[in-house]
Amino acid sequence: MENNEDLTLDPENWETMRELGHQMVDDLIDYWKSIREQKIWKPIPEEVKEFFDTPLPEKGQDPTKIYEEFKQYIFPYNKGNVHPRFFAWIQGTGTPLGSFADLLASGMNPNTTIGEHSAMYVDRQVINWCKELMNYPSDASGILVSGGSMANITALTVARNSFGDQQIRASGLRDVENRLVLYCSTETHSCIDKAAEIIGLGAKAVRKIPVNDSYEMRPELLVEQIEKDLKSGYSPFAIVGTSGTVNTGAIDPLEELNQIAKKYKLWFHIDGAYGALAKLDPRYSSRLKAIEEADSLAFDLHKWLYVPYEVGCTLIRDAKKHRAAFAITPNYLIQEKRGLSGGLDSINHYGFELSRGFKALKVWMSLKEHGRAKYARLITQNNNQAKYLAKLVQQHTELELTAPVSMSITCFRMIREGGDEASLRELNREILLQLQEQGIASPSSTILQGRYTLRIANVNHRTRKEDMDLLVNEVLRIGHEILKK
Amino acid sequence: MENNEDLTLDPENWETMRELGHQMVDDLIDYWKSIREQKIWKPIPEEVKEFFDTPLPEKGQDPTKIYEEFKQYIFPYNKGNVHPRFFAWIQGTGTPLGSFADLLASGMNPNTTIGEHSAMYVDRQVINWCKELMNYPSDASGILVSGGSMANITALTVARNSFGDQQIRASGLRDVENRLVLYCSTETHSCIDKAAEIIGLGAKAVRKIPVNDSYEMRPELLVEQIEKDLKSGYSPFAIVGTSGTVNTGAIDPLEELNQIAKKYKLWFHIDGAYGALAKLDPRYSSRLKAIEEADSLAFDLHKWLYVPYEVGCTLIRDAKKHRAAFAITPNYLIQEKRGLSGGLDSINHYGFELSRGFKALKVWMSLKEHGRAKYARLITQNNNQAKYLAKLVQQHTELELTAPVSMSITCFRMIREGGDEASLRELNREILLQLQEQGIASPSSTILQGRYTLRIANVNHRTRKEDMDLLVNEVLRIGHEILKK
Ligand SMILES: Cc1ncc(COP(=O)(O)O)c(C=O)c1O
Ligand SMILES: Cc1ncc(COP(=O)(O)O)c(C=O)c1O
Repeated sequence: MENNEDLTLDPENWETMRELGHQMVDDLIDYWKSIREQKIWKPIPEEVKEFFDTPLPEKGQDPTKIYEEFKQYIFPYNKGNVHPRFFAWIQGTGTPLGSFADLLASGMNPNTTIGEHSAMYVDRQVINWCKELMNYPSDASGILVSGGSMANITALTVARNSFGDQQIRASGLRDVENRLVLYCSTETHSCIDKAAEIIGLGAKAVRKIPVNDSYEMRPELLVEQIEKDLKSGYSPFAIVGTSGTVNTGAIDPLEELNQIAKKYKLWFHIDGAYGALAKLDPRYSSRLKAIEEADSLAFDLHKWLYVPYEVGCTLIRDAKKHRAAFAITPNYLIQEKRGLSGGLDSINHYGFELSRGFKALKVWMSLKEHGRAKYARLITQNNNQAKYLAKLVQQHTELELTAPVSMSITCFRMIREGGDEASLRELNREILLQLQEQGIASPSSTILQGRYTLRIANVNHRTRKEDMDLLVNEVLRIGHEILKK
Repeated sequence: MENNEDLTLDPENWETMRELGHQMVDDLIDYWKSIREQKIWKPIPEEVKEFFDTPLPEKGQDPTKIYEEFKQYIFPYNKGNVHPRFFAWIQGTGTPLGSFADLLASGMNPNTTIGEHSAMYVDRQVINWCKELMNYPSDASGILVSGGSMANITALTVARNSFGDQQIRASGLRDVENRLVLYCSTETHSCIDKAAEIIGLGAKAVRKIPVNDSYEMRPELLVEQIEKDLKSGYSPFAIVGTSGTVNTGAIDPLEELNQIAKKYKLWFHIDGAYGALAKLDPRYSSRLKAIEEADSLAFDLHKWLYVPYEVGCTLIRDAKKHRAAFAITPNYLIQEKRGLSGGLDSINHYGFELSRGFKALKVWMSLKEHGRAKYARLITQNNNQAKYLAKLVQQHTELELTAPVSMSITCFRMIREGGDEASLRELNREILLQLQEQGIASPSSTILQGRYTLRIANVNHRTRKEDMDLLVNEVLRIGHEILKK
């Protein structure tokens, strides 16, 4: 095969490659199927870490051998968010068909940004379905991105560029009349700060409005801050409300924020990276009605739609403003009416990226496989599990709930009489680490009003109520063992 | 399975899902194996397009049925960059093992940004290997991103934030002393404009320096512009050199740009999205030596490393500046010394994204499968094919080369005596469209000094010399047919 003229990266033996593919499918199916029986996490031995210190290979190696190495060094030390008791940060589970879709997407390998080919239509349909999921206006625009961070910064870039008639896209921020500021709560995800820094507003442009005891933004303080800023010569340009804060799943008073935004002519953006999809749970649909009114919405499909990484979505109410923020057509990207360069508007006109993979396919297949109704029931189930866990916590005098439960996050910790904050922090930290080290469950932690707390964030379609029972029992067991020492 | 208590998205029947996975592997293998015999592109029938107009499904559907729809409506209308005669834009081919790696990555589904798990080590090793590929300093930092656009904007954000002691990350651009400007050539990729717009500098901050007849930046004009800007009260902060321009594969005089950057204390960034990897071809290694000196480098692995979409890389010489531009550690992301939250520095500290997939795996497996040496030979082969094509073009009086060949892009067109620009444009446009519509080959087009031209960009590991012969013959055949009418 390898004469000097026509070298290729295609396999020397297609049948060996085929078998390898079958083997991978089998190993994955076996893995997913038995995941509940496996330890959720284990420490990585030193010699495994050292394996990843070798230099760039000069010569090639047999794919079958590479796969063996994968099975020895990589597969066993997985993060664990595929496991039914993974509750750390906010990380989705993925699904088998979702992963198979990733295989197909990668195998077809279309650069899904320009041109007349099927992936462009799938991408568009998925955006339309995303709008339907949110009951967002059908003439809105949208784009699939890598996740919530990119979804938020994409929306905020449009918001910034749409401000007044200041030609920010052309002239930048140096010469805007007044300093632009945006508003969100102290509980807002750090990706909003990061976005503000990146798009040139600076961290100081982010006004963090205090929250109430339920971790929801206090609208009266928002108005106060806006008024103050206006008087001081700032230019308020956007309010960011959160549907499902990362710490506790709190929902800002979206309808009020929307009214305030309208009153002051500000862009109203909702960060629903985690919790916009709670809209599918009938108990939340009215509180999240304001999503339909927002100027823009960011939400993740790799979180609460359980689609494998990466995929998030930005929706923008005013498609023209969206396009005006990003469209560029250089000579080498001119569209035609026919042929490969024909077709739909280039997706590059709606975001940061030019080359894009076919991430739409896994969303498309997933939404078809399960349908809206089943997602609604599953999201409801996660919410119920969080409430169930809260109830268990409240039944134990040694446990305390550290935040009200909204959506599918439960924050709690073990307490002991007379324990000061530092010792409670040490106790719960040790409980957390041992839960992970013993391979039982993977919560994460946060700090709420100075209190260190366990944080059970559940966007997991494999979780059952019995996992919550087990979790509580194990927290108590480990806690007691630590205290005995 | 589906009782109301414990709903899951796992398949009702694991064995059916397993078979489906096998079927997909088989279909992909057959597709790749026979790709040379297939038409590269075909128009999408109206009824296929209509299929993508259906509303969000309410109920689920059998995965086997979904896969049948995929095979009917999606698979046959692929973009074609897997095909040996795909030469449009600059789009990589992908490889079978690369796609299988995407399956494994998606199946493990680790959120590769934080925590102690194998994907973090693979990601780090791939960054190290990327540095080795470029002979970039081993203490530099880097991050895998979705592609060249994100790689460039990531680097430019670091460059901007590292400018002087103006606290841009905290205070934004509104109050910088002088307007920041950056320099690149008129042939620079539009993603640099887009990056400047997004990070708040504005399109006007991008100084486009004219090029010579080989489409390379003219350093004397660069110096002139810098001097002019300094006198007019601007703050030059970065020079962007390109290693392999998108139009013609030109290489800016990188060493000179680097000297100029040093002299004026500017950040020197290289956009090598397409052509940094030409460094592996021994004939280019000295001209691209300056890559090793740059403050930052962007390059794509989904282009000339032939890895499936999406994956690009940013390398930053000064790891501290890199981290200082992005690191944020909120309460819910605190790292521990043990357990799941232990491990390496969070990758989120080096870029825009928080959630990230395991895109490192396909690069890792690919580099192991083929080794550096084979990539070097293949990249050399692509460069040779471009030169071979140029030679064929020069042998025909009816064809003209529209740019010198540098790297693996060949620009040419059909000419006829007395044909004015408009008629030549129509002729070549029609040739291009018919090449695609007849399923023969997929070049794209661009406009060079006002001349419409066919553009053959070859980062394709399936291309053979015979494909270049065929291309030239078919251009002439189609051209003659058009002229006959
Ligand atoms: C409320 C909220 N916003 C934004 C993000 C960032 O999303 P991603 O991790 O997909 O970038 C998260 C992630 O947890 C989140 O919870
Ligand atoms: C020179 C150059 N820079 C940047 C890019 C953008 O890279 P990507 O499409 O991966 O975003 C390209 C894409 O063709 C390019 O050729």
